[in-house]
Amino acid sequence: MGRTLTYPKRSSNTVNRYKHRATYDLGAIHQIVNASPVLHVSFNPGPDDPFPTILPMIGQMGSFEYPSASLDEPLECYLHGYVSSRIMNLARSSGGEGLPICVATSQVDGLILSLTPNSHSYNYRSVVLHGYANLVTDEEEKLWAMKMITNSVVTDRWDNSRVPPDKAEMSSTVILKVKIVDGSGKIRDGGVSDERKDYADEAITGRIWTGVVPVWQTFGTPVPSGDGKLGEVPEHITSYIEKKNKQNRALAESAVKVSLPAEEQH
Amino acid sequence: MGRTLTYPKRSSNTVNRYKHRATYDLGAIHQIVNASPVLHVSFNPGPDDPFPTILPMIGQMGSFEYPSASLDEPLECYLHGYVSSRIMNLARSSGGEGLPICVATSQVDGLILSLTPNSHSYNYRSVVLHGYANLVTDEEEKLWAMKMITNSVVTDRWDNSRVPPDKAEMSSTVILKVKIVDGSGKIRDGGVSDERKDYADEAITGRIWTGVVPVWQTFGTPVPSGDGKLGEVPEHITSYIEKKNKQNRALAESAVKVSLPAEEQH
Repeated sequence: MGRTLTYPKRSSNTVNRYKHRATYDLGAIHQIVNASPVLHVSFNPGPDDPFPTILPMIGQMGSFEYPSASLDEPLECYLHGYVSSRIMNLARSSGGEGLPICVATSQVDGLILSLTPNSHSYNYRSVVLHGYANLVTDEEEKLWAMKMITNSVVTDRWDNSRVPPDKAEMSSTVILKVKIVDGSGKIRDGGVSDERKDYADEAITGRIWTGVVPVWQTFGTPVPSGDGKLGEVPEHITSYIEKKNKQNRALAESAVKVSLPAEEQH
Repeated sequence: MGRTLTYPKRSSNTVNRYKHRATYDLGAIHQIVNASPVLHVSFNPGPDDPFPTILPMIGQMGSFEYPSASLDEPLECYLHGYVSSRIMNLARSSGGEGLPICVATSQVDGLILSLTPNSHSYNYRSVVLHGYANLVTDEEEKLWAMKMITNSVVTDRWDNSRVPPDKAEMSSTVILKVKIVDGSGKIRDGGVSDERKDYADEAITGRIWTGVVPVWQTFGTPVPSGDGKLGEVPEHITSYIEKKNKQNRALAESAVKVSLPAEEQH
């Protein structure tokens, strides 16, 4: 490739704490988003409400203009929602560039159990994106985004369900397209890191167990619906579960093994 | 008991979509928060920034005034952070009641694979809280909150680590206390729910598999730190892992089995 595209550093997305863990690379950030079953989306409900609010949503990064774009290319964030939900109404009536929102996700990959409570931590991957959200009005783009989002739940699920959506389904579903203004990711991996003074004290190290407990998301045995006429679980589901269970576990376990100089961890 | 305390319904926290899944019960809401390894906390960085932002944080609901309060009593949300992080600086300098923030969490308990993409869903538990955040200045309350938060990562971890924190540790750690103004939870459980017209079409039901894939968080085998003098994993860690793995799996699997009338699901 010979190039790495990065999000611009602005005051709103620049990581100041544990900077060595920050990433601004499009590829790393988009991968974390697209591996997340849920995104947390924040917006301000209105001038009379002092509190920002958060909605859990399903979404994916993609490019309708260049559908074959890889994860390290510029992408938009597509979010799936209900036509009359508050965030959709706000986006519909927002003037200017669109509704300013924040999209965030965090995956815990391990518990870091160290000598002192202060040096306890998680292995994790987190992302924060800021951007302007607008409703997708082009039917072709909307259908493309719906397919992408459905297939993020289980690979190939779209073609294995009753499609295309009918008129009522198309009008009750709304897709929000977020033009990303800035973004950052933070990845913590590796093992335990303690302060030198505790680490040197045998009364402490002889008493306190330290290490990492890997954590990952497991997909269990599919439970067929009582009405289902198809007894056997189809291959697109079984292979997805098998692949994800392997990947998720491998990621959590391999995160432990990364070894950084002690002073760069924590 | 004879009473169920609930959060007030305000426009900012009233659930309008799938109302039957909403809960305002303190007990149900606090339980979901305290079972979450990560909370997503949203705040507005300042008047010049159009975007709210989100920070992943570790936190717990509790009552310092009545430490023995149960989960269905009025509680505050305590969040753990670094002394000079932006949210802490904003809370420190906020006048009035404090910094208006939103605390949210979502746990996915299953994939709902139905006939049409539109009726696909997750089994999940989610919570949104709004409130005013202030720094905890009382040393005793701060220590109490630090212990509660550390023990939420692994039960009894506080007493099994090097405590109490020294002066430097106490001053680098800041605890944010959120007085909750309103809150709501949403719980989706049960099986697949489809539209009557698809459900009645044998060409569709004969071709498309429907059912639920339970999803839960798994804790793996602890990896001892290379420097650890203690080879054997202590009981407070092994019993926590065993308990959580059983609980998490049982919760995801039992969520599938709840049976609601079809029209109340989706």
